[in-house]
Amino acid sequence: MSTRSPHRPSPHEDSPHIICTVDVVALTLIATRLHVALLQRAQPPAQGDWALPGGYVHAQTDADTSAAARRVLADKLGMHGVYLEQLATFSGPRRDPRGWSLSVAHCALLPADALPAQGPAGAIRWVDVQQLPGLPFDHAAIVAAALARVRNKSQYSSLPVHLCGEQFTLPQLQAVYEAVLGDTLNKVSFRRKMDDMGLLEAVPGAMLTGAAHRPAQFWRVRPAYRQHLAVTPRGL
Amino acid sequence: MSTRSPHRPSPHEDSPHIICTVDVVALTLIATRLHVALLQRAQPPAQGDWALPGGYVHAQTDADTSAAARRVLADKLGMHGVYLEQLATFSGPRRDPRGWSLSVAHCALLPADALPAQGPAGAIRWVDVQQLPGLPFDHAAIVAAALARVRNKSQYSSLPVHLCGEQFTLPQLQAVYEAVLGDTLNKVSFRRKMDDMGLLEAVPGAMLTGAAHRPAQFWRVRPAYRQHLAVTPRGL
Repeated sequence: MSTRSPHRPSPHEDSPHIICTVDVVALTLIATRLHVALLQRAQPPAQGDWALPGGYVHAQTDADTSAAARRVLADKLGMHGVYLEQLATFSGPRRDPRGWSLSVAHCALLPADALPAQGPAGAIRWVDVQQLPGLPFDHAAIVAAALARVRNKSQYSSLPVHLCGEQFTLPQLQAVYEAVLGDTLNKVSFRRKMDDMGLLEAVPGAMLTGAAHRPAQFWRVRPAYRQHLAVTPRGL
Repeated sequence: MSTRSPHRPSPHEDSPHIICTVDVVALTLIATRLHVALLQRAQPPAQGDWALPGGYVHAQTDADTSAAARRVLADKLGMHGVYLEQLATFSGPRRDPRGWSLSVAHCALLPADALPAQGPAGAIRWVDVQQLPGLPFDHAAIVAAALARVRNKSQYSSLPVHLCGEQFTLPQLQAVYEAVLGDTLNKVSFRRKMDDMGLLEAVPGAMLTGAAHRPAQFWRVRPAYRQHLAVTPRGL
């Protein structure tokens, strides 16, 4: 907030309307590669293009922009209760032909076992982030920012656990971290970092059994960390 | 951006106006403690309160919200060319009595040798972040988010160099990191991390000389890193 400089108009008076929207970069891992959810736009601008799901902020009903992003996830992708964080706000006079616009971009992480192929707003395409089609507006820059954020945060936080299902073994979790980081990790130090963060709890009596290996314990994220990240100060 | 659901109004039609502003958390180190710039508000709401410098986004003239934040730094604090990054966007119906508002908060870092005590918009108070007065709106939450961001990023990036003057010795730089992190660092590993990041260059012929110590080399930030961070993957 600010005091208004007297020589400058307030947007309540004669300054142009600013278009306020949210966009959501919904990411998941399919075959160890990050994929993003795209929807086909039903109206102009960019009608028919595949784009990030998004929508106007509804000042009548949205508690804040995160609530708007959750509404978009629910109404357009049929997704509820997923991990969501604010990414950054993209703005300017040229990113949208409708006028000076501001979009608060959010990043959502989903386990691959919960992916809808059809949302309330139509078919959902899950596209490999390395093979994105041309995206309208500045959506390519928004996806790039989301990937940089996720890869960076994965080096020192529990972020990638939100790409896992409810239960996972430690080798499965390490594979998810390695897929996101694009790097192999040392098993011993990886497990120590997971211990340091204290974000996992063993699922009582749940073991992965198979002929080839001895049974492996299933783990899950502690409730405290299902919407908040655990952080390790030293990095993986 | 999004396609409009037909049953939902567009803000171009009958949805309430959303107030779009920027706020700036301008931080500096004074006597090894982080301080934030506050201005006294000249108009309601919260007239007379000390608050973060901020202002409306001017769709007529601002290239984006970062340009709006730089305009606020120049017009209200008289600061130019400082390190600035977007922090996060704060929004909702109750944070400002004027209505549903959205503020894109930015964080600016300044060297203590360049601090104005008087800005174009009046006196500037530099307040120890540990001794903040009650702040209007959600400015206390914005400052808290800025401090968390700066402390977190300082663990693995060059961010604190922007709190230093143009030239500094490595012991001076380490003291700045230690002040921000609230922790002592190992001299050898600190210098290795600085080397890893490759962000410093020696200032030719510039040495700090004093009776008590042998001369120390002065360093400065490479041009490439004056507005972009260098990052170390493993943390300090």
